[in-house]
Amino acid sequence: MLTQMTIIDFIQELGSNSPAPGGGSIAALAGALGGALTTMVCRLTVGNSKYAGVQSEVENILAEADQLAVWFTKAVDEDTEAFNQVMAAYKLPKATDEEKGSRSEAIQQAMQQAADLPLTVAEYCLKVLAMAQRVLIIGNANAASDAAVAGLMAHAGLHGALYNVKINLSSIKEERFVTATQAKIRTIVAQDNELHEQLLKNASKVIG
Amino acid sequence: MLTQMTIIDFIQELGSNSPAPGGGSIAALAGALGGALTTMVCRLTVGNSKYAGVQSEVENILAEADQLAVWFTKAVDEDTEAFNQVMAAYKLPKATDEEKGSRSEAIQQAMQQAADLPLTVAEYCLKVLAMAQRVLIIGNANAASDAAVAGLMAHAGLHGALYNVKINLSSIKEERFVTATQAKIRTIVAQDNELHEQLLKNASKVIG
Repeated sequence: MLTQMTIIDFIQELGSNSPAPGGGSIAALAGALGGALTTMVCRLTVGNSKYAGVQSEVENILAEADQLAVWFTKAVDEDTEAFNQVMAAYKLPKATDEEKGSRSEAIQQAMQQAADLPLTVAEYCLKVLAMAQRVLIIGNANAASDAAVAGLMAHAGLHGALYNVKINLSSIKEERFVTATQAKIRTIVAQDNELHEQLLKNASKVIG
Repeated sequence: MLTQMTIIDFIQELGSNSPAPGGGSIAALAGALGGALTTMVCRLTVGNSKYAGVQSEVENILAEADQLAVWFTKAVDEDTEAFNQVMAAYKLPKATDEEKGSRSEAIQQAMQQAADLPLTVAEYCLKVLAMAQRVLIIGNANAASDAAVAGLMAHAGLHGALYNVKINLSSIKEERFVTATQAKIRTIVAQDNELHEQLLKNASKVIG
């Protein structure tokens, strides 16, 4: 498992001439780092009487960000697994027409999974971005730059994941899947634009 | 050492109620991930006859990105160390005027180091961003989304580092240091704007 590797070893493996792990796993890792940083800011806020007025809101954010950080951590490995499934499908035999047919079907199925996972990564990054921009304003002011970095990581993870959706989408033949996914991408990008702008505004207000 | 932890353990430690590691280390980690992904794209390009015309340029990028990934990996620990030095300085005794004086001097010195390190992180993220947007266009097209993610990580690391510079800068009294650092921030942000725009253009051209 990638996430059982030390950070030093993971970075070395990432830079190797093997295409996996690649950008998809890094987008998920960015989500995990953003989610975890958000929980740190929450933990530095919960129980602090200076922030008594926002305790229940921050506790709710903490619970959700905790779950998301766990989900993203699993997705680091799952994205590389989904990529490997696509590679495995391409290596299926294609000597007969029947083999060609089942190979093509296996590729299409693996491609849809490899597009679906980063789409969920992007959707969940949106949640982390929303929480990060909020705790940047209401959370412990000493951790303002941490909340800002959490939001930036979520924003980067979101767009990184969407590039992975798009590159897989270009090989998918089922039009309904392609059209539905493209519509989801547009919705995510629009929401990200608003939340990212809010994050920068909040950061400029609190940090300078 | 943080970078000797497994990714799972690091994410858990990041989310704990201890302020370190925090956003500064994550900005450096984003630079390391962006640098390593850039080297992967280079390694998938070097030796491939389809990209014969860009071999020497990609080899040069590979050598520089390799060095930067190593530097960033060290900076993950160094940023947390710099933060701990600031905390240690605040805990120095302040009973007498002399103690107050040396405590204040120690805080200022630690603060300047804690601002200098993320400033270098931001400068080096700019280098990774420049290389990522370039290999996105000239490198192996199968790794285009990896190059795009590399650039996004560098861009996020850069702005994350700058938030850490700014938050430390607000406690630094030496005006010359503050003015010089603010000028450097402006230069970095202007260069990042151009390179990030180029990255998005290249990604849209190659990935869609």
